[in-house]
Amino acid sequence: AKPAAKARVGAAARDKLGEECGVFGVYSGAHDAAALAHNALLSLQHRGQESAGVAVLQGLAIRHHKDVGLVGDVFSKGRRLPDSHLAVGHVRYSTTGINSLQNAQPFVTEYLKGRIACAHNGNIINSGELRRQLIDDGCTFSASSDSEVVSSLIAFEALKRDSIEDAIVHAAEKLVGAFSLVLMSHENKLFAIRDGWGFRPLCIGMGPGGACAVASESCALDGIGFEFARDVLPGEMVLIDASGVHTLGIVLDRPRQGVCIFEYVYFARPDSVIDGQSVYGARYRMGAILAREHAVEADVVCGVPDSGLDAAAGYGAASGIPVHSGFVKNRYIGRSFIYPTQTQRETAIRLKLNPLATNVAGKRLVLVDDSIVRGTTCAKIVRSLKAAGAREVHVRISAPPFRHECHFGTDIDSEDALIANNLDVEGIRRQIGADSLGFISIDGLREACAGARMPLCDGCFSGDYPVDAGGHSKMQFEGAAR
Amino acid sequence: AKPAAKARVGAAARDKLGEECGVFGVYSGAHDAAALAHNALLSLQHRGQESAGVAVLQGLAIRHHKDVGLVGDVFSKGRRLPDSHLAVGHVRYSTTGINSLQNAQPFVTEYLKGRIACAHNGNIINSGELRRQLIDDGCTFSASSDSEVVSSLIAFEALKRDSIEDAIVHAAEKLVGAFSLVLMSHENKLFAIRDGWGFRPLCIGMGPGGACAVASESCALDGIGFEFARDVLPGEMVLIDASGVHTLGIVLDRPRQGVCIFEYVYFARPDSVIDGQSVYGARYRMGAILAREHAVEADVVCGVPDSGLDAAAGYGAASGIPVHSGFVKNRYIGRSFIYPTQTQRETAIRLKLNPLATNVAGKRLVLVDDSIVRGTTCAKIVRSLKAAGAREVHVRISAPPFRHECHFGTDIDSEDALIANNLDVEGIRRQIGADSLGFISIDGLREACAGARMPLCDGCFSGDYPVDAGGHSKMQFEGAAR
Amino acid sequence: AKPAAKARVGAAARDKLGEECGVFGVYSGAHDAAALAHNALLSLQHRGQESAGVAVLQGLAIRHHKDVGLVGDVFSKGRRLPDSHLAVGHVRYSTTGINSLQNAQPFVTEYLKGRIACAHNGNIINSGELRRQLIDDGCTFSASSDSEVVSSLIAFEALKRDSIEDAIVHAAEKLVGAFSLVLMSHENKLFAIRDGWGFRPLCIGMGPGGACAVASESCALDGIGFEFARDVLPGEMVLIDASGVHTLGIVLDRPRQGVCIFEYVYFARPDSVIDGQSVYGARYRMGAILAREHAVEADVVCGVPDSGLDAAAGYGAASGIPVHSGFVKNRYIGRSFIYPTQTQRETAIRLKLNPLATNVAGKRLVLVDDSIVRGTTCAKIVRSLKAAGAREVHVRISAPPFRHECHFGTDIDSEDALIANNLDVEGIRRQIGADSLGFISIDGLREACAGARMPLCDGCFSGDYPVDAGGHSKMQFEGAAR
Amino acid sequence: AKPAAKARVGAAARDKLGEECGVFGVYSGAHDAAALAHNALLSLQHRGQESAGVAVLQGLAIRHHKDVGLVGDVFSKGRRLPDSHLAVGHVRYSTTGINSLQNAQPFVTEYLKGRIACAHNGNIINSGELRRQLIDDGCTFSASSDSEVVSSLIAFEALKRDSIEDAIVHAAEKLVGAFSLVLMSHENKLFAIRDGWGFRPLCIGMGPGGACAVASESCALDGIGFEFARDVLPGEMVLIDASGVHTLGIVLDRPRQGVCIFEYVYFARPDSVIDGQSVYGARYRMGAILAREHAVEADVVCGVPDSGLDAAAGYGAASGIPVHSGFVKNRYIGRSFIYPTQTQRETAIRLKLNPLATNVAGKRLVLVDDSIVRGTTCAKIVRSLKAAGAREVHVRISAPPFRHECHFGTDIDSEDALIANNLDVEGIRRQIGADSLGFISIDGLREACAGARMPLCDGCFSGDYPVDAGGHSKMQFEGAAR
Repeated sequence: AKPAAKARVGAAARDKLGEECGVFGVYSGAHDAAALAHNALLSLQHRGQESAGVAVLQGLAIRHHKDVGLVGDVFSKGRRLPDSHLAVGHVRYSTTGINSLQNAQPFVTEYLKGRIACAHNGNIINSGELRRQLIDDGCTFSASSDSEVVSSLIAFEALKRDSIEDAIVHAAEKLVGAFSLVLMSHENKLFAIRDGWGFRPLCIGMGPGGACAVASESCALDGIGFEFARDVLPGEMVLIDASGVHTLGIVLDRPRQGVCIFEYVYFARPDSVIDGQSVYGARYRMGAILAREHAVEADVVCGVPDSGLDAAAGYGAASGIPVHSGFVKNRYIGRSFIYPTQTQRETAIRLKLNPLATNVAGKRLVLVDDSIVRGTTCAKIVRSLKAAGAREVHVRISAPPFRHECHFGTDIDSEDALIANNLDVEGIRRQIGADSLGFISIDGLREACAGARMPLCDGCFSGDYPVDAGGHSKMQFEGAAR
Repeated sequence: AKPAAKARVGAAARDKLGEECGVFGVYSGAHDAAALAHNALLSLQHRGQESAGVAVLQGLAIRHHKDVGLVGDVFSKGRRLPDSHLAVGHVRYSTTGINSLQNAQPFVTEYLKGRIACAHNGNIINSGELRRQLIDDGCTFSASSDSEVVSSLIAFEALKRDSIEDAIVHAAEKLVGAFSLVLMSHENKLFAIRDGWGFRPLCIGMGPGGACAVASESCALDGIGFEFARDVLPGEMVLIDASGVHTLGIVLDRPRQGVCIFEYVYFARPDSVIDGQSVYGARYRMGAILAREHAVEADVVCGVPDSGLDAAAGYGAASGIPVHSGFVKNRYIGRSFIYPTQTQRETAIRLKLNPLATNVAGKRLVLVDDSIVRGTTCAKIVRSLKAAGAREVHVRISAPPFRHECHFGTDIDSEDALIANNLDVEGIRRQIGADSLGFISIDGLREACAGARMPLCDGCFSGDYPVDAGGHSKMQFEGAAR
Repeated sequence: AKPAAKARVGAAARDKLGEECGVFGVYSGAHDAAALAHNALLSLQHRGQESAGVAVLQGLAIRHHKDVGLVGDVFSKGRRLPDSHLAVGHVRYSTTGINSLQNAQPFVTEYLKGRIACAHNGNIINSGELRRQLIDDGCTFSASSDSEVVSSLIAFEALKRDSIEDAIVHAAEKLVGAFSLVLMSHENKLFAIRDGWGFRPLCIGMGPGGACAVASESCALDGIGFEFARDVLPGEMVLIDASGVHTLGIVLDRPRQGVCIFEYVYFARPDSVIDGQSVYGARYRMGAILAREHAVEADVVCGVPDSGLDAAAGYGAASGIPVHSGFVKNRYIGRSFIYPTQTQRETAIRLKLNPLATNVAGKRLVLVDDSIVRGTTCAKIVRSLKAAGAREVHVRISAPPFRHECHFGTDIDSEDALIANNLDVEGIRRQIGADSLGFISIDGLREACAGARMPLCDGCFSGDYPVDAGGHSKMQFEGAAR
Repeated sequence: AKPAAKARVGAAARDKLGEECGVFGVYSGAHDAAALAHNALLSLQHRGQESAGVAVLQGLAIRHHKDVGLVGDVFSKGRRLPDSHLAVGHVRYSTTGINSLQNAQPFVTEYLKGRIACAHNGNIINSGELRRQLIDDGCTFSASSDSEVVSSLIAFEALKRDSIEDAIVHAAEKLVGAFSLVLMSHENKLFAIRDGWGFRPLCIGMGPGGACAVASESCALDGIGFEFARDVLPGEMVLIDASGVHTLGIVLDRPRQGVCIFEYVYFARPDSVIDGQSVYGARYRMGAILAREHAVEADVVCGVPDSGLDAAAGYGAASGIPVHSGFVKNRYIGRSFIYPTQTQRETAIRLKLNPLATNVAGKRLVLVDDSIVRGTTCAKIVRSLKAAGAREVHVRISAPPFRHECHFGTDIDSEDALIANNLDVEGIRRQIGADSLGFISIDGLREACAGARMPLCDGCFSGDYPVDAGGHSKMQFEGAAR
């Protein structure tokens, strides 16, 4: 179940996950950088629907446009950026719903030695301290986002350094947490840097005529006709200019790495390949492993659209139980208010996700979904399947139970609201009304993602993070300028 | 491939099908008729995205609101209709793109004996003659739609008849073509009538507290928590009032019937059941029959999202070839303009529908889609699969080749633009770049829909229509008031 | 005080007057008819701010665009009509606030012998009967406006007549009430007709290159650079075509005439000349006559902006008392909501109309306004002047007390809500807090407008109308289609 | 002639003046500060129509909303700020048309010791140097406005100072140019400070229940029902908190003062009183002095609405020539596009400002306007009067000829575009087509404003500024972030 879509229908109860942002940068000799960035952001829209923006270089100046809304709304007719060979773009997911416009990205800054535009995906856990230090050193802030902290820190470092490259490296060394950054400077340079733990994905692609791009996910490269070249490595910094892509080496050396395993479970688009592991492939294997770990006798496997479908395919293949469409999802509902009626009882769920009676009635079902946060949506879905005549509903979840906060960009609920911290598996099963319930094991999930060339972070399930998150002060949004 | 969505991306070349409208009516003692109609229209939105409207009875008056846009836009905050027990709703697909607001429905008319609101799905082939006759008899027209003709005809008949029931019957007798009508009158009555050929679907459902509804498709009943009761029969007229549903019998007796077979292939939502035949079931069997009629050795079956997925499931099950996701469809693209770039070559297709390399590269694919109109989209999809590494692409189409116009509400291209009238199957195969190509046979398609209790119209494939469409004058839109 | 502007600020209490509509038509060889109509409507905007529309002829077809809003909003970028030599335009004032879009004009109709577009200013008092008769004769209606009745009546008459000219004349003969109509037909003809009583103004102008126009007021001709030629006479019908302006004579002969005297007092723009009498000149003389009828010793004369300013000038000149600006009117307030605050007491009035202390403090003032309906606004203004230090405030009103309904297009309050039907002059004076109060006499008002070549209707003051309005059934809006 | 309104109609040729901004702040125990600020900004809207914003204190946090548009648009339904006792508001006029949203005010900043919101009216002529220095000291900038410089400078000073009061004073000492600032800090304090030269107005008012406010003009106090208390003196700083208004004395001591004389001529609302001089009174006397300096035999005096009307009244009174309305101004035109037509020659002027033939035809006119910049509008107006039959047109201008740039907030054209730098009075007369032309003398203008308790700056006429503006670097907008 897609969290942001749910949010738009105004779910009072919070039963969702979210992540902050998609980033993109491109250097194209053909002066179509703004258009390429726009189109690439369309392919990254699933990573953030709250705001969107693109900055381009024009001579020594940086022009940008950003606003609240989907990419298509922000860049609707009449809002065109100038032709340019260099662009940085961003889509943003917001956990708070406030500060929308002020915190939209890219963040454009003029500082001692020039101008930069910065797009950021991730979560800096020491941004509160860094902001406080910068304020102590005399900096001022007008927004409340990590990105302003990162931009200010780079500008501050630039005072003491010989080059923007040096400033970025020294700034990045101070950042604790998740960051995949794309920056451009007035010196006609595009930079990409990924934190040393490698939490969030970032990759490089090559386009026609020597064009080069960096993007959060490889699907954005596909969409604009670029060839995927390679991932940016954890701690690596890359410079792209007129002469092509240049690695500046691993500038941030950390003892452990951990790409967010939930990118494979839910966030990333299935057609992306992250650190060598196909997202679709991982999800399909999650389903197969679930079939092994939680076998059950059943007539039909069905997935919850859209995020459960790939694991359902894997479950079916591994178990030999036929896979069928269990629901029809209403593709128009996200934009609409559903009126409460006296006649219509469980209003929303069947309008959004209607069981396909043909495949459900009288059947013993395996229902595959990607995760359970609070369990309320899952309970409604099970109830609607039973109402449609399902004989048994066996729920299989392709993520282990959430038990811990994420400090690195995933917007999980507070720990005490997580159903798995309040009920055991049998308790959850009873609450959602399923005939059986199985979560994939952490080991099983790791096995499913074994194609990744990197260690994975599964801290939200295991509590074991590649870096100690304790003791850092959260940014005090409530006191910040709105 | 969804036609209307394509149209919104501004396809200059026309490679699409369309149908006119979804209708809904409800009688609810709970005075929530407007809200029920709104929510039901959300479930019928796939039948028309151009305009939407709802009319309700308030005392002896009819209040309505209709506008250009999706249901969610038309009834955005602040546009509420009064509480009422009786409502009629409509969503409209437009073939022309003009006259949008004037032709939005329901059409509300005051005439000699009262007021009616009328919602119409279908196409009246003699509406030009009827309009001319009504004009000769002194009627005036301010829009250019069939619906205004139908409303005027009923009002005109009402002059000579004793009751609105009689007027509707006598008016309907004069209509040649497809019509599923839902009407309400100031006398607190809701009527539903389906043409004697039965071209377009129409069904009845029962809600809590004695509420009754009619809808184009059963999925609209599911969405509001009503139970499907039965289909309105071809030629049947039904009256719904405070005492429930009353059939007025088969008032339009035609020698042949023919429910549009393309409702099963493409138009209807898979979770609907039309005249006894599940739409999903029919599509699944189309795939199975395709597997029988056009077997091929291959590694993977994949469907073109969303409309080819169900038939792909059937093809896979029948052939034993595993079914996998072949593409990721961008769910955000419909609302966005895609900027042309110099760098990005085949701009649109990979942004909209990106091949899932994992499942495609090195594989021999069976690609299942619902239809080929001009072949341009199909060619792009095949090309993108090959670019993603597909070894072979065997295209299987769950509809026979289009060769004839539809006069009954399906917006097929002109006959000479249809690829099947210009090329044989081998020619089409070559043009779309497939390694093999198979269309389901007309007999196969009929077999797939054999659960329908009614004869089917397959005139667009066979040229054999249940009623002679020749010689009727089309409405002269070009001369009509805009 | 401008009524419509007040209405936009959301006055719950109704203290306003209104009139229905401005009309315009043009025949221009230069194919810029749509643009001319648009610009002319800008100059007629004071006659109606609720909706606007323009229809043009394109070949045999009539294209039109109309919507709710000001002219500038309705024809904002992107809504252009095709080039044409023939256009009809309309701005509408609405008394009800509902039915806005359905009743927007011009009303375009297709009937037996072609197509017409019709724009109407006035009020047909027998429209209820005519509509009922037309319904009895088989006509249908989808809106609830006089204009639809007029259009249908013309179309109905056309059945029995040899020409559109004849049909218009025969239809017009049946209309009782006020109407200045501008029509165009598909036969490339523009018609203007004014009711036989001459209630509402209508005039003819000549533009460069043989272009001809008709407009509600001469200021609309000025604005587009046309020369005023003459007024359309009461009962006269005029045809404009490629060969110029042709009178068809006085086709509606009525025993009495009466141009609405309130056009001179308030409705019309001061730069218009109606039936030979300059509106500014009339208002100036009203002030002078007020000075004669209600002399008072005072230091300063000031008018209530904008409508009281011209009479104030006349009062000053006649009395020898200097005229000064008494207020500054906020030109931006109409579009804004004024937030209620605890601190700010009489919220709205000083934001909208701030006394100019320099001219007011310590002074004995003559305050000139155009009319008193309920007296609430006037009371607030007097209070604010006193608060600004005025020693005395002598209110002079350039219209006699309203005592009677208007049946001919002026939207006066119901008779029992009119302050003059509840209080005598001394009572009103006390209620508005003035030191003295004088209304112009009916004879004085007539004298002020003596330049008009026509008798005047002062029925709202005298109860004497040029035609008997009794016994006609009002259109039953409450039962009409919304 | 109102410059901003002209700009909205899209005048390609630039024939206008403009000023930057209106400011407002309020401390109200009644927690209605946001509403008071909103309403007060409505009364300051004439000082800036490009963007608007309000910031309020909520606990220790500052919440704000600002956007491009008129006050009424920016705070349309649904955009409410929280209840608060402390608010700062701003309306902005923009000379550039770009950077709109980024540069909207109030500017909210978090710095070492807290948070401030700052609203600024004026122009800092050394903002380029200050920005460069701040950048050298490590500050970063994300917008391109003076206000960000001022905010950053205060925050920077706060590092070295013990209190926000000290920081504001030390920052303000560095500012060269015009500034009337209203600031609030998280410490629950509202500050107002006016530059030592006193270029822009700023005044204090008292409301019910101990509420205190500061505003650019006294008319904003009237509008919200506050009593004008006194002006903030040049160089004075004022603190407003729960215990009332406290002067912090003259903190900026400058050898010369000079309130902008053009505030009296054109910018300010006539109902404002600035530094003891009523604006209306000054304008009236300008007219009287013009009559003395440039007497002429004539029949009628008329002013160009709205800005020439008050001086015309004075001219008439002094000369004994009767004053009449010369034009009707279209109040709706500002929001509308005027379509170019072939038929309509001098398109815009008569639509906007139509001569009142009654008062003009055959008359010898004195036409009073406030200023001539390029002369193009004036020429059109004279032409239209002649076309309306004026026998003679004697133009009288209540400002001397513009010859010099303004560095202090008035947006005059470049010096070589000013007509007075290219033609002598006779040359201008000929170009505008007047029969005679007279500008008020600088001495005469000073005499008209003699009620002001302060010296006046007339640098745009005389070239004599109270502070040397030479050598300062303008902010380089072209290189700034958009």
